[in-house]
Amino acid sequence: MQTFGGFRSNGELFYGEVRGDSVHVLTKPYWLGVEFYGRVLPLGDLQIDLPVAPSKLIAVGLNYADHIKEMKRTPLGTPLIWFKAPTSLLPHGGTIEIAFPEHKTDFEVELGIVLGTTAKNVSVDRALEHVFGYTLGEDISDRDLQTSEKQFGRCKSFDTYTPVGPFVYREVDVRDLEITLRQNGEVKQQARTSQMIYSVAEIVAFASQSLTLLPGDLILTGTPSGVGPIQPGDELEARLGDWPPLRNSVGLGGGSRK
Amino acid sequence: MQTFGGFRSNGELFYGEVRGDSVHVLTKPYWLGVEFYGRVLPLGDLQIDLPVAPSKLIAVGLNYADHIKEMKRTPLGTPLIWFKAPTSLLPHGGTIEIAFPEHKTDFEVELGIVLGTTAKNVSVDRALEHVFGYTLGEDISDRDLQTSEKQFGRCKSFDTYTPVGPFVYREVDVRDLEITLRQNGEVKQQARTSQMIYSVAEIVAFASQSLTLLPGDLILTGTPSGVGPIQPGDELEARLGDWPPLRNSVGLGGGSRK
Repeated sequence: MQTFGGFRSNGELFYGEVRGDSVHVLTKPYWLGVEFYGRVLPLGDLQIDLPVAPSKLIAVGLNYADHIKEMKRTPLGTPLIWFKAPTSLLPHGGTIEIAFPEHKTDFEVELGIVLGTTAKNVSVDRALEHVFGYTLGEDISDRDLQTSEKQFGRCKSFDTYTPVGPFVYREVDVRDLEITLRQNGEVKQQARTSQMIYSVAEIVAFASQSLTLLPGDLILTGTPSGVGPIQPGDELEARLGDWPPLRNSVGLGGGSRK
Repeated sequence: MQTFGGFRSNGELFYGEVRGDSVHVLTKPYWLGVEFYGRVLPLGDLQIDLPVAPSKLIAVGLNYADHIKEMKRTPLGTPLIWFKAPTSLLPHGGTIEIAFPEHKTDFEVELGIVLGTTAKNVSVDRALEHVFGYTLGEDISDRDLQTSEKQFGRCKSFDTYTPVGPFVYREVDVRDLEITLRQNGEVKQQARTSQMIYSVAEIVAFASQSLTLLPGDLILTGTPSGVGPIQPGDELEARLGDWPPLRNSVGLGGGSRK
């Protein structure tokens, strides 16, 4: 397993490969090619930033049977995909700022796929060749707006509504990992990725048959059951297998629409 | 009125300001600052490419009363926004490749807004300060998928489903321009931008209150009535005021999902 991330030091953003307590600095984002700068920094001295900077942030809906049931939805017969704004991405340690405190705003934990190469109209058999690696994400969702607007774009795209990270992992088998979300220490979502209706390969193939996927693009693969509302002051912790947890706190948005 | 565009010469993409028959080459995309390279090329020698490369492609729905009526929809009380994939953009002269020939796939002509500066939570009064300029776009829509999936993302995001251009215009009043779409020479859509339910300033303010808008982001502002299906072999011509027309032909997709 290889581990890649985005880091900040003295305000400067860069990407690196994490090996133990060290970060081996890369000359460019890893999804454009893993090329070392020749500089090694202690992980503890760095601020963890977003491990991704996608040109497209694709979300998949209704990909766990028990979540379809809790949302009282009907399966579509194909993956359901839509787009979130990349400006909604939030790194590990950042604060989810609730845009509308009077609305019901839910957490949703999800496995994330990071594209490594351009993919257009690829088959399920060849789809995994286009994947760079995997990450852990959340698809924070304003249910009031989701109900009134029907469209899944805006209600899930407020700034900070897509926590992701802390890192991206390569050469890892994600077919049957435990995925959990804890709210203030209590387990709220707990499932296995093997329960996904559409596999990673099927999702990548389907998306690539709809549009061109570019290196660095991020696909969130849907959430299991157990979604629930967040409140200011909450601490969320997402986990996937034995990867380091993605931790974020919840606050009140100062900058978003009231 | 100033005119900016993206051009290609010997395969190389660059941006420039169009003055008469000449293109004054810029050192970087105009939305990051208008700075001249000191080189002037004849417009006729260049291939017109996309005048935009947005980090977000935002679409607005239901913004003309007569289109709401023809789609049998109910107004929401706020602008309805969602996201199209930037990979769907198609320059002037390019071919719209129909992904599903057996589906009803409609044209929709729209005024486009190009952001000039970062906008977060701005008021209607200050919104226009964040606009760089305007362009002309189309929101090609697979109605079969729009009906079955409900979500407006994928059905409008197939590669080539967002023709835009040929250029972007600055210092221009777009409040009451005639907007038309001709299919094989016949006028199909004809309206005035003054019929828009939400103005440019209201749309930019609303979007910025939902998420952070970045320089270069593109917002399509909704289509008037008269939308209709396209067929392979069609020639589409969109016009806005006395700007040069946006012309695209229609073909059969070779690379998209069948």
